[in-house]
Amino acid sequence: MQYPKSVQRLIAEFAKLPGVGKKSAERFALHLLKAGHRDAASLARAAAELHEGLKTCRVCGNVDEHDPCRICADDKRDTSLLCVVEEVGDLCAIEAMGRFRGRYHVLGGAISPLDGVGPEELRMQELVQRVKDGGVREVILATSSSVAGDATCLYVEKLLEGTGVDLTRIAFGLPVGGEIERADPNTLARALDGRRRLR
Amino acid sequence: MQYPKSVQRLIAEFAKLPGVGKKSAERFALHLLKAGHRDAASLARAAAELHEGLKTCRVCGNVDEHDPCRICADDKRDTSLLCVVEEVGDLCAIEAMGRFRGRYHVLGGAISPLDGVGPEELRMQELVQRVKDGGVREVILATSSSVAGDATCLYVEKLLEGTGVDLTRIAFGLPVGGEIERADPNTLARALDGRRRLR
Repeated sequence: MQYPKSVQRLIAEFAKLPGVGKKSAERFALHLLKAGHRDAASLARAAAELHEGLKTCRVCGNVDEHDPCRICADDKRDTSLLCVVEEVGDLCAIEAMGRFRGRYHVLGGAISPLDGVGPEELRMQELVQRVKDGGVREVILATSSSVAGDATCLYVEKLLEGTGVDLTRIAFGLPVGGEIERADPNTLARALDGRRRLR
Repeated sequence: MQYPKSVQRLIAEFAKLPGVGKKSAERFALHLLKAGHRDAASLARAAAELHEGLKTCRVCGNVDEHDPCRICADDKRDTSLLCVVEEVGDLCAIEAMGRFRGRYHVLGGAISPLDGVGPEELRMQELVQRVKDGGVREVILATSSSVAGDATCLYVEKLLEGTGVDLTRIAFGLPVGGEIERADPNTLARALDGRRRLR
């Protein structure tokens, strides 16, 4: 027996989520099937209303109920520090840490020609404009440690050439709590390259 | 910065799905946030319509667009074989194999006092009634290999005592393609216990 049509449709929707395979999608759908209509309707409502009232911040590209977003509007933030991230989720992860008091620039992705993402798909010109507008002392690149993340860094580096702004990239190395024995060779190589003098 | 309210709500809904932690729920919600309203609305619709037109089969407890379900209504099925499963998902997995030509009985779960599930929460009396109604030669227990699955088997065994029906349980052992070296001790023990004479 095949699943009823409505179950198949929900499985197909779940399977579009990142990292969700057919098996997990089935498990999610069957869970809701058993949990009942109330639970399914509750998820339905949350998904339907997800974008309601949300705006993309015209300054930094963050998504928020306000434009400019709460971070850009916060005058206690250090405007001389600009942290460049790929996605809104990266911004949220850094905010969750609670230590960064500068502002952000959300590119909307990373340069990846194979996925059809070139610099013109990203908020690159807006970044240049923000730097040119002045007030920014340091641009911190917080892109992923991946081919796309590296390519994006190189591109930004060229783009900001001659602007006189300090350009840094977050450190790569052994994760806190990580064991050297279990670290992969690439991470170890980055950790070694990035070693710092103790005294 | 906290996520906007609507994002938080969707994260909370995703986190209710089985095996989905806070991190995955965030990833799903941020994916939809970026994908746009069309994709979110599409998931919303599928979830809202999940239970539409679905009925619980009064014979076997399967969920289908028809009652009795397509399996119970199929007169090419062997009515003398009754396969007892915990959930509709288990039934679907066995059907996907395509080799079983009997019918099913969906209990709606497994006995697990810690989770508040006793025999009276399950479709046990309906099972006894089906067996007493006659025509069933063999009851195959296809519950999980877990404490709850074992407890459910023991309970059904007692319940069907004296009915004269054959009672079997599916085999446990090394999965096909599995390596002995990588099998866990419990699986190996079950495989050894269940060994069969070759000649």
